[in-house]
Amino acid sequence: MLTLYYAPGACSLASHIALEDSGAYYVAQRIDYASKQQTSPEYLAINPKARVPALVTPRGVLTETPAILAFIAQSYPAAALAPLDDPFAFAKLQAFNSYLCSTVHVAHAHRMRGYRWVDDSAAIEAMQRKVPETVGACFDLIERAMFVGPWVMGVAYTIADPYLFTLAQWLEADGVDPARLPRVADHRSRMLQRPAVKKAMANEGSL
Amino acid sequence: MLTLYYAPGACSLASHIALEDSGAYYVAQRIDYASKQQTSPEYLAINPKARVPALVTPRGVLTETPAILAFIAQSYPAAALAPLDDPFAFAKLQAFNSYLCSTVHVAHAHRMRGYRWVDDSAAIEAMQRKVPETVGACFDLIERAMFVGPWVMGVAYTIADPYLFTLAQWLEADGVDPARLPRVADHRSRMLQRPAVKKAMANEGSL
Repeated sequence: MLTLYYAPGACSLASHIALEDSGAYYVAQRIDYASKQQTSPEYLAINPKARVPALVTPRGVLTETPAILAFIAQSYPAAALAPLDDPFAFAKLQAFNSYLCSTVHVAHAHRMRGYRWVDDSAAIEAMQRKVPETVGACFDLIERAMFVGPWVMGVAYTIADPYLFTLAQWLEADGVDPARLPRVADHRSRMLQRPAVKKAMANEGSL
Repeated sequence: MLTLYYAPGACSLASHIALEDSGAYYVAQRIDYASKQQTSPEYLAINPKARVPALVTPRGVLTETPAILAFIAQSYPAAALAPLDDPFAFAKLQAFNSYLCSTVHVAHAHRMRGYRWVDDSAAIEAMQRKVPETVGACFDLIERAMFVGPWVMGVAYTIADPYLFTLAQWLEADGVDPARLPRVADHRSRMLQRPAVKKAMANEGSL
């Protein structure tokens, strides 16, 4: 049995969708950011980073979206969510996911979580002003140079797809018009039609 | 044949060490940041992100340290650089590396690369002031809750070790006293004694 700790609207949606895709038996447990439940002693005992996602497995807790996604793909190989027997193709997939976590998500985080990196409000506002440019540049690179099509990595749907979809959901709020990203926007539309995506979003109360 | 593009002092050192550990046949190609070679048309054709590392393989280019490290481990299994047949243990290892790239390296980058996220100099200085606190908090968590010992993931040396070592090399410049991190500091000392580390650092002209 797996338990996914998530917050609605957070990057944990990627793992939530991948769990649906995998056929795993799991439960989803909401963490309420409004009441700062992520910093409660109970949750810190699960994830001392005070963030979602966290995936509780019979062997222990996993964190970090790229690691959880690869774990799901490797643990449920019948779902064919990654090229598990091809180190180069697997690395290309992991490079995409690593770019999302270390560059795209970080660019986005400067809009609402600037206090992580500065203490004064003027600097936080300076960060917020630049988010449309930085997030836009990331997605332009994805659109132009990284997205293969029809799915992120090509013909096969993989764990990169729910992750891109999850971060693309934030585009409008980050001040980036999806119309300038036709391939990313089309991908998002097709993802929204998948039963696994509908199920995960309905679980989170966001559909 | 593999070609690693690196810059001295950059996170590419982790991949450089892992290549030495793996026994792979490779060449290391320096990118000169002082002359902004990373933004030259020649290098952008290799890595449009204008960063190091990039690993050129017979099948194409790989980027992003966590992905390159996993590729090296999977491609040279005899070197036993990761628990390749255990999805949970592999995910724990990947979660560690993902934390380094998406949180620790990002905290560090606010000292020298603040222009990525803001345009004005006062905000850049505000970022720089907080780096000792943010990088320190990351390494405190590693010291207290993530580092298993004697190596990062436990008894076995893995691809997490050169990555932690590489980022720990930046502690003093980031304003964090390694003396408050005895396990991380001891790990760094032991890493410096390994022939692969000496070789990679000598290749880069940093030893």
